[in-house]
Amino acid sequence: MYLPKHFDQQDLDSLTSLLKAYPLGTLVTQHEGAIEANHIPFLLDGNLAAGGKLIGHVAKGNPVWKNVAPAQESLVIFQGPEAYITPNWYPSKQVHHQVVPTYNYAVVHVYGTLSVIHDEATKHLIVTDLTRSMEKTRKSTWQVSDAPADFIEKMLNAIVGIELSITRVQAKWKVSQNRDLADRNGIAQALSEQLSSERDQRMSAIVRSGKGIGED
Amino acid sequence: MYLPKHFDQQDLDSLTSLLKAYPLGTLVTQHEGAIEANHIPFLLDGNLAAGGKLIGHVAKGNPVWKNVAPAQESLVIFQGPEAYITPNWYPSKQVHHQVVPTYNYAVVHVYGTLSVIHDEATKHLIVTDLTRSMEKTRKSTWQVSDAPADFIEKMLNAIVGIELSITRVQAKWKVSQNRDLADRNGIAQALSEQLSSERDQRMSAIVRSGKGIGED
Repeated sequence: MYLPKHFDQQDLDSLTSLLKAYPLGTLVTQHEGAIEANHIPFLLDGNLAAGGKLIGHVAKGNPVWKNVAPAQESLVIFQGPEAYITPNWYPSKQVHHQVVPTYNYAVVHVYGTLSVIHDEATKHLIVTDLTRSMEKTRKSTWQVSDAPADFIEKMLNAIVGIELSITRVQAKWKVSQNRDLADRNGIAQALSEQLSSERDQRMSAIVRSGKGIGED
Repeated sequence: MYLPKHFDQQDLDSLTSLLKAYPLGTLVTQHEGAIEANHIPFLLDGNLAAGGKLIGHVAKGNPVWKNVAPAQESLVIFQGPEAYITPNWYPSKQVHHQVVPTYNYAVVHVYGTLSVIHDEATKHLIVTDLTRSMEKTRKSTWQVSDAPADFIEKMLNAIVGIELSITRVQAKWKVSQNRDLADRNGIAQALSEQLSSERDQRMSAIVRSGKGIGED
């Protein structure tokens, strides 16, 4: 990823909170020279850095787990809030008109090597942990043990666990850090007031803080 | 992408509206055996099918335009609304408890070959068209001609245009089409009423219709 220094996000808490709020990762792999992408909810195990792990599962029918070479790096992309930024929001526009539009976004790229998990006890642990994490976000209360044990066994038999051992992480917060404070305030103000979508509200908070993912 | 038949979205209007609402594409390329991804707003020229084109631009400093082999297929991913689906929302849960959580999402994968545009007049056209399209969404009014011509010339010199000639398109609407009507209604109801985020509202509308992207 093209990553100019002013957009390079190193704050681990910001990266981790993006993953929690946007857990649907895009797993990108290579197979016989072609690029493949699958969309999979992931759970972070350990730190979002080399040595940590992303845990998930896929349908047994999904060829991705058969096709990946163990030594090859795969990429998981997590995409946060995004917003088009019109120059009309820059106070500096009124002064010199030397402004152009841009597009803001926050993303985390996690590189690592994939391995596959067939062991039923470990798969059970994966779906239990994933469910707990997701239900917490939903303030809901379903748990794996609410379903009949023989049904869960059948379900587990239809999936394989996957684990990405993280080798490196890149994160880009392209959130107007290259504009002066007045322009940043103009953007944040417009995103939070003139328009009302949730994505805009979040980007507004990110533009103000330069980190986080706008959830606070 | 793993694409079971019931999740295969063929409705061209649905695909096109996803691109318009979520224009920030993830351009995935291969370079010297490694996967690279860059996030770029794209404009569709023609149909979202083989023969159509995705148009955008990148900073001249971004190596992506130098690294891509013309004959190699690249992938652009557009990601729409997403939502965790708790089994608590399925009426069928009360009957047999044979239910597990899932994760819903709508995505479009556009494969094609990249070419690079250096011609200044064409680059001017690209930024003009992209700006017009984005400003329309924002109900805003800035246009490229609002900036001083010599400033725009300087800006154009700092970018290169890119064009993806589409070879194939895959779209996955994983929106509970494999559940019965009662369960689908339960999900749509919960997403639209119990919770209030914009992403949830959109997914609610998609679950009800099985197509579109929840904007109507």
